Amino acid sequence: MKPELLLKRLREFLPPESILSEREDLNPYESDGLTAFKQLPLLVVLPETEAQVQQVLRLCHAEAVPVVARGAGTGLSGGALPLTNGILLSLAKFSRIEHIDPLARTARVQPGVRNLAISEAAAKHGLYYAPDPSSQIICSIGGNVAENSGGVHCLKYGLTVNNILALRVITIEGEMLEIGSTALDSAGYDLLALMTGSEGMLGVITEVTVKLLPKPERAQVLMAGFDSVEKAGAAVAKIISAGIIPAGLEMMDKLAIRAAEDFVHAGYPLDVEAILLCELDGVNEEVSEEIKRVHTLLQEAGATTLRTAQDDAERLKFWAGRKAAFPAVGRLAPDYYCMDGTIPRKRLPEVLKRIHEYSVHYGLPVANVFHAGDGNLHPLILYDANKSGELVRAEAFGAKILELCVEVGGTITGEHGVGVEKIDQMCVQFMSHELNLFHALKKAWDEQTLLNPGKAVPTLHRCAEYGAMHVHQGKTKFPDVPRF
Amino acid sequence: MKPELLLKRLREFLPPESILSEREDLNPYESDGLTAFKQLPLLVVLPETEAQVQQVLRLCHAEAVPVVARGAGTGLSGGALPLTNGILLSLAKFSRIEHIDPLARTARVQPGVRNLAISEAAAKHGLYYAPDPSSQIICSIGGNVAENSGGVHCLKYGLTVNNILALRVITIEGEMLEIGSTALDSAGYDLLALMTGSEGMLGVITEVTVKLLPKPERAQVLMAGFDSVEKAGAAVAKIISAGIIPAGLEMMDKLAIRAAEDFVHAGYPLDVEAILLCELDGVNEEVSEEIKRVHTLLQEAGATTLRTAQDDAERLKFWAGRKAAFPAVGRLAPDYYCMDGTIPRKRLPEVLKRIHEYSVHYGLPVANVFHAGDGNLHPLILYDANKSGELVRAEAFGAKILELCVEVGGTITGEHGVGVEKIDQMCVQFMSHELNLFHALKKAWDEQTLLNPGKAVPTLHRCAEYGAMHVHQGKTKFPDVPRF
Repeated sequence: MKPELLLKRLREFLPPESILSEREDLNPYESDGLTAFKQLPLLVVLPETEAQVQQVLRLCHAEAVPVVARGAGTGLSGGALPLTNGILLSLAKFSRIEHIDPLARTARVQPGVRNLAISEAAAKHGLYYAPDPSSQIICSIGGNVAENSGGVHCLKYGLTVNNILALRVITIEGEMLEIGSTALDSAGYDLLALMTGSEGMLGVITEVTVKLLPKPERAQVLMAGFDSVEKAGAAVAKIISAGIIPAGLEMMDKLAIRAAEDFVHAGYPLDVEAILLCELDGVNEEVSEEIKRVHTLLQEAGATTLRTAQDDAERLKFWAGRKAAFPAVGRLAPDYYCMDGTIPRKRLPEVLKRIHEYSVHYGLPVANVFHAGDGNLHPLILYDANKSGELVRAEAFGAKILELCVEVGGTITGEHGVGVEKIDQMCVQFMSHELNLFHALKKAWDEQTLLNPGKAVPTLHRCAEYGAMHVHQGKTKFPDVPRF
Repeated sequence: MKPELLLKRLREFLPPESILSEREDLNPYESDGLTAFKQLPLLVVLPETEAQVQQVLRLCHAEAVPVVARGAGTGLSGGALPLTNGILLSLAKFSRIEHIDPLARTARVQPGVRNLAISEAAAKHGLYYAPDPSSQIICSIGGNVAENSGGVHCLKYGLTVNNILALRVITIEGEMLEIGSTALDSAGYDLLALMTGSEGMLGVITEVTVKLLPKPERAQVLMAGFDSVEKAGAAVAKIISAGIIPAGLEMMDKLAIRAAEDFVHAGYPLDVEAILLCELDGVNEEVSEEIKRVHTLLQEAGATTLRTAQDDAERLKFWAGRKAAFPAVGRLAPDYYCMDGTIPRKRLPEVLKRIHEYSVHYGLPVANVFHAGDGNLHPLILYDANKSGELVRAEAFGAKILELCVEVGGTITGEHGVGVEKIDQMCVQFMSHELNLFHALKKAWDEQTLLNPGKAVPTLHRCAEYGAMHVHQGKTKFPDVPRF
């Protein structure tokens, strides 16, 4: 369908302000948080009602126009990268908190509602929404569902999939699905989990019902410094194997510590190789008891610095450093590439050693920040896109890290999704019959492959090409960087 | 394929003792725990290795022979009911606990391992597997995954889907899938959740990796009696809205109390209309604190009897009554039909009133046992299959209860699955385009519909027939029972 005709058809049911077609209006949508990839969509639509979303999707279905749905666009794997021949469907106008039920402890919200806005609205009932991605001030709950987002508290409270109860979803054919319920279990296949993390490939979310949790009576944080990353890793193992489930258990290495400290003056020690932040929450007595136990465990693990936040202000300061780690590291170089992979906890020291070796090999510094409790790594590779070859080296370095995650028995994503960023590594993670199953599942929802095509699941053809890279040493996409 | 030829082909790769074909050997497999439905399979196979399972499935795929997989056969919705023209594939010989990792707190087990055996094996590390269906002594973990089983502790610890990390699954084409990992998140669609509760329709599970939890330092139980079911229901609401998440929160009505007390002498009061059992677990101080709070809340809610178990022996006695409620009620009548549906907690009093009205209407007594904390009802309908019309009345009564669950915003299954039992109620729960999506998902895994055909998801044709029953009053499947 010609763009002019598509525009005409859209104008039949969308008001003028809900359609963007001028170059300058399209520019803000050219990428999501993975800014290394950019392209302009054909058009942007901003529907306000479910009926409008249904009409948009029915039109796209009838005319075979690809559609990319987008929330706040904070995703880090390019899941909301638009297509030049497709419509970008922004859910920004779906921004209403529809209902909070303090007794059932649920909130029913539209997908464009900001993650943190849910907790703010629930606060007057003493409740909050647990998953807390670093971007929680601006990221939207619909995007959180699409990417199955996590956060520093997901060790104890789970990822998005563990914290939602129901969805309203519109299929590419314009059919409304009501998925899940406020009950624990639902009959039929688990479409709720299938939708969560499906990166906009199966349907467009128009409503999310989330679980709310009672705010813990008390939260307290311990900060421990170690003279080696191995010792910090061993301390994590000690805490977990003691049967303690911290609300958060985060590790930062020397470069990340220094960057964060310079940036927000969190009070971190600068003479250590790694720090751990361990937060405990719950009822007062429980927290006091666990703080004592963790303190002892950290001492036994050889912590050279060990501090308990003296008050809530200091607790927040300790976390401010961690939460600002990405932008802080960002100040050390013109560009950085934030990786996201998961490994079995016990392989941490070995993986860090290998990442360090890669860093030397590729000639690019790396700062490491981890959700250590659940083995989710966020290495931040520093580079300068204006220096010839640095971007490709950074990408190759990142690919090596993801493949290392698979090699040690982990996965190529912890909480950021696959998008366009990690699509080649899907070939490493999965066998061809597994990828075929993913494609068959996709077809069950979207026969013509119109919803977010080209993301998350590679074609076998693409894998064959990428696979060849591994088989035939030297014939890489990045001929300047020999693979090893 | 002729049965003789099928037998011959199976004997090419299975030892003689792994194939049952004589009538007397097939008899034990004629039903699962839903004994109202019985039929003999063509053959039973009991493979011992994944390679054998692959060969069985490849043969069935090539020759279009239906296959029903079965664990311990304790399911209550007929999910493992064999097909007269199909193979029953028992996983009984997959009974090895392969690995327990106390540090990662995981157990890798074969699907035929009994639920309780996992906790027994993990006990020496101070760990256990949380989901505890009533049948946990004999039910197998593979069946738990297939039905997404719950138990009295799932309010706090979740259903099976929340307690497993990875699966090995063989497709009908004989392909091995490795699904999930020990990481929190996996790339690609959430096949782990999709498989869980899929009732043997998508693939055959050959290995399960479960999460283990540290045994709580202390567990304590409160037992409260109320002079009305409404008051007991209100007490549940009070506890939950106070932000307390009990390890278990169970309700029994008068008939269930009396039956249990006569059977196991649990120490329940007989002069009340309902009792609540509320278990709290965690570290010592936390439990003491919460017991105090719950005690106060139960008093405020008007409990006429209120006791805290004085020691672990009394705690176990309180639970023994609840856990024996099904067989205890079974002593009151020759047969009983155990229902399983879920409702929003706040609708409990109204739903109980309606169930009581149905009981009068159908002339069949009902005892009510609930996982009250999560709104999962288990009404037990008493009947005598030898009295003409009682079975059909019991089934009609059960159907009414399930449809009531949907009407008030709940679902037709809490933890027992759909199987053959609730397949008609799926038509009430879902719209036709939603059922079509389920069928399309099934086809993505099993194009020829060979795995457990006829279970869990009704055809639209079947729904049209069942729907007609509702539209045209009087024209029911059960002409002796007018619907209302």
